[in-house]
Amino acid sequence: MTTAPQAPTDPGSVTEPEGSDCQSTHHGYISDKDRYLARLKRIEGQARGIHRMVDEEKYCIDVLTQISALTSALQGVALGLLDDHLKHCVVDAAKTGGQTAEDKIKEASDAIARLVRS
Amino acid sequence: MTTAPQAPTDPGSVTEPEGSDCQSTHHGYISDKDRYLARLKRIEGQARGIHRMVDEEKYCIDVLTQISALTSALQGVALGLLDDHLKHCVVDAAKTGGQTAEDKIKEASDAIARLVRS
Amino acid sequence: MTTAPQAPTDPGSVTEPEGSDCQSTHHGYISDKDRYLARLKRIEGQARGIHRMVDEEKYCIDVLTQISALTSALQGVALGLLDDHLKHCVVDAAKTGGQTAEDKIKEASDAIARLVRS
Amino acid sequence: MTTAPQAPTDPGSVTEPEGSDCQSTHHGYISDKDRYLARLKRIEGQARGIHRMVDEEKYCIDVLTQISALTSALQGVALGLLDDHLKHCVVDAAKTGGQTAEDKIKEASDAIARLVRS
Repeated sequence: MTTAPQAPTDPGSVTEPEGSDCQSTHHGYISDKDRYLARLKRIEGQARGIHRMVDEEKYCIDVLTQISALTSALQGVALGLLDDHLKHCVVDAAKTGGQTAEDKIKEASDAIARLVRS
Repeated sequence: MTTAPQAPTDPGSVTEPEGSDCQSTHHGYISDKDRYLARLKRIEGQARGIHRMVDEEKYCIDVLTQISALTSALQGVALGLLDDHLKHCVVDAAKTGGQTAEDKIKEASDAIARLVRS
Repeated sequence: MTTAPQAPTDPGSVTEPEGSDCQSTHHGYISDKDRYLARLKRIEGQARGIHRMVDEEKYCIDVLTQISALTSALQGVALGLLDDHLKHCVVDAAKTGGQTAEDKIKEASDAIARLVRS
Repeated sequence: MTTAPQAPTDPGSVTEPEGSDCQSTHHGYISDKDRYLARLKRIEGQARGIHRMVDEEKYCIDVLTQISALTSALQGVALGLLDDHLKHCVVDAAKTGGQTAEDKIKEASDAIARLVRS
C-alpha cells in the first residue's frame, strides 16, 4: 500500500531468484499477513475436522458439506491474495513496463486460470 | 426423513441419530476408510504448508498454486465420497423406495450442487 | 420410475446402444421438458448476446459478467438434469441391481466429476 | 481507499462514460476480435445443440457431457478476455495510477471472483 522505502522494515529479506518476485520489497499481502494467517489457521482446523469426521465415520453428506465449506474458505483466501497481488506486484510491474509487465500479467493470468478450473 | 418401517430390511442397523444416515449398517466410504484418512492427512499437511508459506512471506503466486492444488485434492476426496455414497446409501434407499429414496436423492443432489457451486 | 413394458408409449424410439439409456420409458427430465427447453432457449439467447457484445466492442468486464451469468444458468440446468437423472434412471437401475446399477452409478459419478471440475 | 492526493498524477484523465471503460482507445480484446467472435459463434452452436438434444429427448448423461464442454469453452473465452483486459486496460490504469488504478483493479478482482465462484 505504501510506496515509501521499505528496506528498514525488511532487513533480512531473502533474495529471490530470477524475477519471480514483486518489484516492491514486500509482497502485496504482507500488510494483511496476520489476517491471512488467522484465516489459514482456521482452514487447517477445518481440514483436521474433516479428517476427524471420517475417522469417526460421520455421515458422508455431512463430510461433503464440510468439504464445500473448506473449498469456499480457500477460494476466499485465494481471491484475497490475488487482489493484493494485482494491487501491488502487477501494478508495480505495469509501471516498469516491457517484458517485466508482460511476464507478471502472464503469471497472474495463469494463476487465475488454475483457480477458475480447479 | 423416512416414513416406511425399516426394521425388516435392516435388522441390525446401528441406531443413528435423527435419520441422517444410510439404511445400510455402514457408510459407503468405510471400506476405503484408511485410504480416505491418508488422503485427508495429506490435505491437512497441505493446509499447514500454505499457512507456513504465508508466514514465511513466500511469493503470492506460489501460494496460489498450492491453494489450487489443495482445492483439487479436496474435490478428489469429495467426488470419491459422493461416488461411494451413491453406490451404497443411495442404492439402498432406492431399493427401499418411497419417501426414503426421494429424501436421499434430494440430499445427494443438494450436496452435488454445493460442490459444483463452491 | 416404471418398469412396465415400454413399447406402447414409445413406438418410434430409436434403439439405443448397449444399455446407455434409462430402464424407464422416459428420461427423467421429460416431465419437465418444456421448462428445460425454455431455459435452454434463454441460454441460447444469452450466448448470442455475448457474441453481439464482443461484436459491438463492449467493455470486457461487462462481457465477463454475462459469461458468469451464462455459466451459472448452465450449471442450474445441469444440476436439474442430474437430479432428475438420479431420481429416475439411477433409482430404476438401483432396483434392478447388479452390473446395471454399478454402471449407472459410475456413469453418474463421472458426469458429476466433469461438472465439478469444469 | 486512497489517502494521498491524486490530482497531480492524473491531470488529464480522459473523460470516459461512467468510468466503465479502458484508458486506451481500444479494449484489450479487439486485436483478437475475429477469433473471439468465431469462438462465440461455436459456443452459440453448442447451446443450440443442447437445446436440440433435450428436444429430441437424448440421454441425460449425454446432455450433461455437452453442458460441461460448453462451460469449459465459456471459461476459455472468459480467461482469454480477462488476460487481454489485464494486459491492456489494467496495465494502462496502473500507469495512470491513483484512483483510476485502484478502481480498475477492484473491478478486475470482482470479475475474477465471479468467474471463480460461478
